[in-house]
Amino acid sequence: MKCSVEDRLAIQDLMVAYAHAVDTVSDIDAVLDVFTPDAVFDLSGIGLAPQLGHEGIRAFFTNVFANMEHHAHYLTNFALTAFDGDTASMRAYVIGMGQGKDGRAVTVNGRYYFDVRRTEAGWKATRYTMDFLMPLSGTLDNAK
Amino acid sequence: MKCSVEDRLAIQDLMVAYAHAVDTVSDIDAVLDVFTPDAVFDLSGIGLAPQLGHEGIRAFFTNVFANMEHHAHYLTNFALTAFDGDTASMRAYVIGMGQGKDGRAVTVNGRYYFDVRRTEAGWKATRYTMDFLMPLSGTLDNAK
Amino acid sequence: MKCSVEDRLAIQDLMVAYAHAVDTVSDIDAVLDVFTPDAVFDLSGIGLAPQLGHEGIRAFFTNVFANMEHHAHYLTNFALTAFDGDTASMRAYVIGMGQGKDGRAVTVNGRYYFDVRRTEAGWKATRYTMDFLMPLSGTLDNAK
Repeated sequence: MKCSVEDRLAIQDLMVAYAHAVDTVSDIDAVLDVFTPDAVFDLSGIGLAPQLGHEGIRAFFTNVFANMEHHAHYLTNFALTAFDGDTASMRAYVIGMGQGKDGRAVTVNGRYYFDVRRTEAGWKATRYTMDFLMPLSGTLDNAK
Repeated sequence: MKCSVEDRLAIQDLMVAYAHAVDTVSDIDAVLDVFTPDAVFDLSGIGLAPQLGHEGIRAFFTNVFANMEHHAHYLTNFALTAFDGDTASMRAYVIGMGQGKDGRAVTVNGRYYFDVRRTEAGWKATRYTMDFLMPLSGTLDNAK
Repeated sequence: MKCSVEDRLAIQDLMVAYAHAVDTVSDIDAVLDVFTPDAVFDLSGIGLAPQLGHEGIRAFFTNVFANMEHHAHYLTNFALTAFDGDTASMRAYVIGMGQGKDGRAVTVNGRYYFDVRRTEAGWKATRYTMDFLMPLSGTLDNAK
């Protein structure tokens, strides 16, 4: 099944909205709005504990936002890797920069993988994972 | 009002054309071609003096291009934030790299905000501002 | 002649597929799949010897993949610079990161230029060149 340009861009927009929400370093509701209530938020690929649903994602970002001062997540190389009408998968590359309130900086060079589902409120992520492309520069301690 | 894919991509192209013009480190006319004659070019968000219209933008880049040896402005995370048929607003993330003729380097991690208007010559920027996502690496002295 | 949104995105996808293949640091067939059998792979713009056709490209990446441990090629600022129905040219910016098996790292800030042709198997690259935007950080020894 072919994905329309509109759907493709809408899924891309969802990933960009996630980055933008994370980069507010404050707006947890904007982060949650990207995910279905039962979404799997699984960063085990980069060594962090997986989270389940809005409750788990909220707990994760409550901690992250408490520790971080600045975020910048640049998304490129979008690629639709699956599409079945009402579900889809999209990959993107990410350069993720963070600076903690303790001044320590980290840069992540990796990939985001979103599984998404069409809902009445538009495309939402049902599963999010990532992996590294390059060895980590800095530490993810602040995100733990 | 919904923005067509064609308009969305055309506005995105305008921002990319701006980056490309700035990265020539020489072609001021290509920079001006991105803006309406009365455009507000306001980089006060990153500590630079705002400029008014083609005359002000020309003065700004005459100085920048005289001082800089290399530029590279990577645009990602495009997001249409307003659309009203003949006007629109688009945000993008930028990684802006510069190296001065004196050898000093600067990297800017921030966001571009373009207000654009449909003209007979296509979409043009009526206002351009930016802000930082991460603390500045290097100095913007060369751009002043 | 106007390029449809579908064609434009398909050409963009081809460039992203190239980056993804290179970033596997192993899958030469995936790299070759991006190019026509007689493609010109010309990196003389960044000081590397040009390669001709699948055979030359295979030899080049056999060597690169033998020496490199990690790759990450971020593509942004896509711009269609020519379109004639069945041929087209597209430019993109690239941040190319590499880490050799010897531990040495290199970052390339430049531009990709793809000439592409419509084939029965979709758009394929007939010519690929690149240039630098910023002075090289690190060395390309591993790629030679």
